[in-house]
Amino acid sequence: MEVSSKMKRTLLTVLTLGFILGFLDLAIAQTADPLSSWNDGEAKQSIIEFVSKATKQGTSDFVPVEERIATFDNDGTLWTEQPAYFQLLFAIDRVKALAPQHPEWKEKEPFASLLKGDTKAALAGGEHAVLEIVMATHAGNTTAEFREIVQDWLATAKHPVTKRPYTEMVYQPMLELLSYLRANGFKTFIVSGGGIEFMRPWTKKVYGIPPEQVIGSSIRTKYEMRDGKPILVRLPELDFFDDKEGKPVAINQYIGRRPIAAFGNSDGDLQMLQWTCLEEGISFCLYVHHTDAEREWAYDRKSGIGRLDKGLDEAKKNGWTVVDMKQDWKVIYPVDDR
Amino acid sequence: MEVSSKMKRTLLTVLTLGFILGFLDLAIAQTADPLSSWNDGEAKQSIIEFVSKATKQGTSDFVPVEERIATFDNDGTLWTEQPAYFQLLFAIDRVKALAPQHPEWKEKEPFASLLKGDTKAALAGGEHAVLEIVMATHAGNTTAEFREIVQDWLATAKHPVTKRPYTEMVYQPMLELLSYLRANGFKTFIVSGGGIEFMRPWTKKVYGIPPEQVIGSSIRTKYEMRDGKPILVRLPELDFFDDKEGKPVAINQYIGRRPIAAFGNSDGDLQMLQWTCLEEGISFCLYVHHTDAEREWAYDRKSGIGRLDKGLDEAKKNGWTVVDMKQDWKVIYPVDDR
Repeated sequence: MEVSSKMKRTLLTVLTLGFILGFLDLAIAQTADPLSSWNDGEAKQSIIEFVSKATKQGTSDFVPVEERIATFDNDGTLWTEQPAYFQLLFAIDRVKALAPQHPEWKEKEPFASLLKGDTKAALAGGEHAVLEIVMATHAGNTTAEFREIVQDWLATAKHPVTKRPYTEMVYQPMLELLSYLRANGFKTFIVSGGGIEFMRPWTKKVYGIPPEQVIGSSIRTKYEMRDGKPILVRLPELDFFDDKEGKPVAINQYIGRRPIAAFGNSDGDLQMLQWTCLEEGISFCLYVHHTDAEREWAYDRKSGIGRLDKGLDEAKKNGWTVVDMKQDWKVIYPVDDR
Repeated sequence: MEVSSKMKRTLLTVLTLGFILGFLDLAIAQTADPLSSWNDGEAKQSIIEFVSKATKQGTSDFVPVEERIATFDNDGTLWTEQPAYFQLLFAIDRVKALAPQHPEWKEKEPFASLLKGDTKAALAGGEHAVLEIVMATHAGNTTAEFREIVQDWLATAKHPVTKRPYTEMVYQPMLELLSYLRANGFKTFIVSGGGIEFMRPWTKKVYGIPPEQVIGSSIRTKYEMRDGKPILVRLPELDFFDDKEGKPVAINQYIGRRPIAAFGNSDGDLQMLQWTCLEEGISFCLYVHHTDAEREWAYDRKSGIGRLDKGLDEAKKNGWTVVDMKQDWKVIYPVDDR
């Protein structure tokens, strides 16, 4: 009986503690603002309203947890894309690192210009030049080797303007939005024009998004046994370009469900937003509008990178949320407390 | 005080009930056998040992939950694949259903033979004939339309030999294995040579595997706006064949992690098993060997469908588990209690 009474007391303590902790959780949830970097306004309000509706049981808008799929573009939506896509800056750094192994690059465009530091001249060759740079720097290794190359680069490379590490140029308000959606049962995916294997090494740590929820552009890979070990070799051949019409195609291919929320910042995201929001049922679409020349960059209808032109008109027509970065966001990047 | 005391009593009741239920759960978990359709033996033992090791914290074999990825072939591993792949039987039924809209099929192979009921003659054209049948029956509609066609077929079609619905020709021991792995924190994926959109409409209900964890062969799709609505049209063009070397390629493409457990039944799964088990670290590979001519089918080294030849040798060489269906499984299909 002694033991039993002791057990009872222990149990009671555990249960009481559990209850108190549960109560505290509830109290915190009720008081802390999960979107604290968002200024009060239409954008923030629209997000909260959508999530409240989708998660309220017993209403016609209620969406079961397994169908709460949210897709996010990456460049310009979750992290900065200026003065150039970060992956292009990575590729340029790789050209410099690989140059000693490629003496022929000294005379061959677009590499020759890149090595002289003239990025503009190198990219004058347009899409073809970019593709040459990407294939020369992204292919020819194994998937495991490429992962390490990306990790090593991110560990040391700094943004040319802010001098911050690239992974600290993610938008604090969007990190909060990702967490807020996940706390409400959403599964968050990245659907980016960027390289799928360029993103996967770091998205879990930076965004809380695991590799299997990252969709992007890809080059072909080939399975081989090398010295008794299975490897995947990255080939210099485009497999899939995950932009514009490619985004709904990829969403269907990888996820097999239609998202109920989609987030982008450019015309390249328009088809993803249409696919998500132009069907029956509750849905939410949001464009990040780059309006803050002081804290980040300001660009839209006439920009080369991240052009947002048709998308702005479509957002207005369809009642999608447009975030005015300057007005709606209290901070841009996570607070730098180093 | 009255209310407060009432509240206290209610709370105490809730907590007590919660405790009792928790205790019952624990008791059930400790006594019930999660693999009750498996006979005691090496195969069952090897599964339990692997899961125990991978989930035991503080050991060198421990695998964090997010890395517990298990991949399963479908045809012949999770459900029967005899006397033909069920998807081919679906395609043949579709040819018959679509014949009135295609009067030209009466004179055109492989359709003419199929419509006369001579499947063997129709398939004499080999891979080319199969591809023609697949494209004629799987393309030309939207993804939403195709999903409905598959669902409608499964709701009424019966297996030519057992007369069971196809979705009841899944292996009970494998259903238990899927549940057992998930109960131990594993994320279970299908990686099948079968069509990705042929499987996704029913894998959640039948296997507990949601669409975003189903990988398969695919045809190309095209994004379009039709009458103001976004659709994806299925094109008669192969996109990806998810078999043999394609399986590790697809696993890397879709999941972006190496599985730590893989399950198959044929040489078409060999590369997936190599990719999973021929690397450093804890891993588990298993072949289902079809040895039960009485309760299911018996076939291996010389079979056209699901040939298991090289795989048997590799399993022996590498110490992979080989399930002897006849010996290791108490039942094949879920008990038919109609």
